[in-house]
Amino acid sequence: MSKVHKFPFVIAFADTDAEGIVYHARYLEIAERARMNWLKGHFSIGDDVGFVVKELNIKYFSPLRLSDEVVVETVMTDVGAAVVKIEQKFMKNDSVCAIMTLRVAYLGKDMQPKRIPEEFIRDLI
Amino acid sequence: MSKVHKFPFVIAFADTDAEGIVYHARYLEIAERARMNWLKGHFSIGDDVGFVVKELNIKYFSPLRLSDEVVVETVMTDVGAAVVKIEQKFMKNDSVCAIMTLRVAYLGKDMQPKRIPEEFIRDLI
Amino acid sequence: MSKVHKFPFVIAFADTDAEGIVYHARYLEIAERARMNWLKGHFSIGDDVGFVVKELNIKYFSPLRLSDEVVVETVMTDVGAAVVKIEQKFMKNDSVCAIMTLRVAYLGKDMQPKRIPEEFIRDLI
Amino acid sequence: MSKVHKFPFVIAFADTDAEGIVYHARYLEIAERARMNWLKGHFSIGDDVGFVVKELNIKYFSPLRLSDEVVVETVMTDVGAAVVKIEQKFMKNDSVCAIMTLRVAYLGKDMQPKRIPEEFIRDLI
Repeated sequence: MSKVHKFPFVIAFADTDAEGIVYHARYLEIAERARMNWLKGHFSIGDDVGFVVKELNIKYFSPLRLSDEVVVETVMTDVGAAVVKIEQKFMKNDSVCAIMTLRVAYLGKDMQPKRIPEEFIRDLI
Repeated sequence: MSKVHKFPFVIAFADTDAEGIVYHARYLEIAERARMNWLKGHFSIGDDVGFVVKELNIKYFSPLRLSDEVVVETVMTDVGAAVVKIEQKFMKNDSVCAIMTLRVAYLGKDMQPKRIPEEFIRDLI
Repeated sequence: MSKVHKFPFVIAFADTDAEGIVYHARYLEIAERARMNWLKGHFSIGDDVGFVVKELNIKYFSPLRLSDEVVVETVMTDVGAAVVKIEQKFMKNDSVCAIMTLRVAYLGKDMQPKRIPEEFIRDLI
Repeated sequence: MSKVHKFPFVIAFADTDAEGIVYHARYLEIAERARMNWLKGHFSIGDDVGFVVKELNIKYFSPLRLSDEVVVETVMTDVGAAVVKIEQKFMKNDSVCAIMTLRVAYLGKDMQPKRIPEEFIRDLI
């Protein structure tokens, strides 16, 4: 339903571990950078806390390594009143290295779920 | 089936983000420290790459904050020839703040799946 | 002048990089955990921001690796009205692997320098 | 002496801590991404370990925050046979937020210092 957003990222030593591959938790950080780039300028959270990850699943198919040029493809797969589902693929040379799905809640400044701002829905779906 | 391993950990600034709570990717790092402590001394991987995370699911129930004293409870839930399933709970004052499940493969030095060493099975299940 | 505080820490994959050694920025995180453990229970920052690193120097002598058991030795080397100097050594089997020195300022809730709480001086020097 | 390399970077939640500012160790990771971008395509390390940080100094002047668009300016300040000195400035809207200086050694595959490859000197100075 929504447009696919593409975010390029180059793997640095900071992302790797002693197995010579990208450390499994780093995918989550790279994915957050991709979502940030995707949301940038599309809406304002004002005093709200904003989006918080409630559940996350990631499957690792083939490892990423130092200097790899990755493209993270982000797409919304479902939108509720206060919750969004997102899928993010880690692509290298058109093959999928990992797939992540997230359930993300929108929180107001009291840390409670809150209706997602209109501009978000309008711009990104 | 297996014994529960408990690993205490104190949240530092390094673990938190600007929302004032532990950053969602950090749970994975803390969980790795817990697994490392659990496996310590139980078996040797020799020249093998060792365990690599293939799939991971995490549900976040209530946020962790700076200075929180967390206990990570680790338990094996399934063991195959080259794959292990693990559940890890993030506990604070006896309530569950997050639950993570992992499917972890054992890899030889050629990065291919390999039979898990005997001592691992014997000691930890 | 002040007592030496010792903090043990075990190196995990999260701390290493593709060179097979601890990533240089990770020393700063481990050092923060050591300072946190050192300060724990000694004083309250109330509404203040607390200590913020203003300058930092680190010399790396010999690399740390996966599973290494490190002890971080922390000592205060100077105390001013709103600034403290700290030295932290990364020890492995009684040899120094890295030395870090920091200049740390105490900030009030307005992010401005503020007099360090009395209990801090009394307890830790 | 050398040309100034500029690397833009956007601050994500992953980079921040509970004080609402970029965590002090994260500057080192961002700086590494900048150096990687700077070196990219300029020379090959073959089987060598490559550059390793031996000493580092960083002064923090004014904090960086979520969504800040930073430019890291990298410049070589000295070149020896096996050692390079580098200065990196974190710029926001033309003001300097932090300055880092590094002494970096080139290591061969035996982890010993080794003469820096010719193309490195030729291209980057």
